[in-house]
Amino acid sequence: MSDKKIGVILAGCGHQDGSEIHEATLTLWAIHKHGCDFLCFAPDIKQHHVLNHLNGEEMDEERNVLIESARIARGKVASLATFSPASVDALILPGGFGAAKNLCSYAWDGPNCKVHPDVARAIQGVHEAGKPIGALCIAPVIMAKVLGKGVLLTSGQDSGTAGHLEEMGAKNQPASYGEIVVDREQKVVSTPCYMLGDSRIDQVAEGVDRLVSAVLELM
Amino acid sequence: MSDKKIGVILAGCGHQDGSEIHEATLTLWAIHKHGCDFLCFAPDIKQHHVLNHLNGEEMDEERNVLIESARIARGKVASLATFSPASVDALILPGGFGAAKNLCSYAWDGPNCKVHPDVARAIQGVHEAGKPIGALCIAPVIMAKVLGKGVLLTSGQDSGTAGHLEEMGAKNQPASYGEIVVDREQKVVSTPCYMLGDSRIDQVAEGVDRLVSAVLELM
Repeated sequence: MSDKKIGVILAGCGHQDGSEIHEATLTLWAIHKHGCDFLCFAPDIKQHHVLNHLNGEEMDEERNVLIESARIARGKVASLATFSPASVDALILPGGFGAAKNLCSYAWDGPNCKVHPDVARAIQGVHEAGKPIGALCIAPVIMAKVLGKGVLLTSGQDSGTAGHLEEMGAKNQPASYGEIVVDREQKVVSTPCYMLGDSRIDQVAEGVDRLVSAVLELM
Repeated sequence: MSDKKIGVILAGCGHQDGSEIHEATLTLWAIHKHGCDFLCFAPDIKQHHVLNHLNGEEMDEERNVLIESARIARGKVASLATFSPASVDALILPGGFGAAKNLCSYAWDGPNCKVHPDVARAIQGVHEAGKPIGALCIAPVIMAKVLGKGVLLTSGQDSGTAGHLEEMGAKNQPASYGEIVVDREQKVVSTPCYMLGDSRIDQVAEGVDRLVSAVLELM
C-alpha cells in the first residue's frame, strides 16, 4: 500500500449534465487498485441544467453539483473551494458533459470558454507544485484552457475538439480505445474514454488504469 | 467475444436511495470484460424518496427510478415491465438501498417485505428457465424473498441481515472482501460488496468480477 493521495474533481452525477459515472467510478477503482487513496472535490454550485438521461430533454428542476457528486463519492466529497494543492500528490479530472458545462463553459463557448475559478486554481496550484494531473474524455479542454503553453493532450479521434485544443495553445495527439497520451515534461496524462462514442466500458477501464499508472510514475 | 447477454436490474442512481453506483458500474465493466453484453432494466416508478448524499437528509423532490437509472446506463435502460427472461442468459441485481427501497420494501419491512411484481416476475422467470442469477450487497434479500427454498446467499458479515435471510427461507454463508458464495444447484451467486462497510472499491470490483465469472460458468 502507498500513502499517496490523489484528488478527483467531480462535476455532478451523469454524463449528460455531470460527471460521466463510469469514468469517475473507474478512476476511484484504479486509484485504490494501485494502493493509493482518493480525495473527491466538486464545486458547490448549481448544475448548469438537469437532463433526463433517457431522452436527453431538459427537466424543470435544479440540482447542486456538490450534492449530486456525493452520489458517486458515497458522501465523501468536499467543496472545491476548500481544496489545497498541498493535500494531494496528484489530481485527476474525469469527463462527462458536466466537465464542459459545470467546471467550465466549453459546451457553449468552445475555445473561448471560461473555467470556474476554483477549478483553475486547483489545476494551476497542483501544476506549479510539480505534481502530475490526469484528464479523461472531454476534461483535456480544461487543461488546455488553464495551462496552454503547448501541453500535449488527446481528444481521442475527435477532430473538432482537437482543433479547439490547439486553438487554446495545446497540442493534440490522437488516441484509440484504452490508450493514453503522456506529456512527461508538463506531467499531464490524458485518455479518451467515451470521447470514442462506441467504447466498451472495459476499454474505458483499461485507459483509466493506464492513466493512473502513468500519473504515479510522474510523481 | 461471447454472444451472451446479461440482464441488469437497476434501482435508481446513488447508494442511499437508488443503485449503489460503484457496484452497478463494476457489474457493467465485468460483463464487458468477460466478453458479454448487458441489457439494463429498471422499474418505471417514483423513487421511494430522494436523499441528499452529502448529509443523508431527505430532499423535497421526486425522482423516477427508470430515469435516474439511465444515468448509470448512459441512456440504455428499458422499463422492467418489458423484460422477457428469454432475452437474457443470466440476470444480475446490484445493491444499494434502492434495491431495498424501490425494488422491494425490505428497508422498512425486513423479512415481511413485498417485492415489486415486475422484479419478482423477472427473477422467477429467469430462475425457472434454469438460468443463473447474481445478487450484490443487499440484493440477496430479494432473492431470499422471491426464491426461498433454502437458496444459499451471503450478507457479508452482517448478522442481522443473515437472520432475515434465514427467516425468509434462505441459507446464509458469511463472506469477506472480494469473496463470492455460489449455490450451484439453484444457480445463484452473491457477493457482499459494500455490505462490508469499509470495503475498498478494488475489493468490490474483485467480488463483482468473480461473481460474473461464476454466473458464466453456471450457464
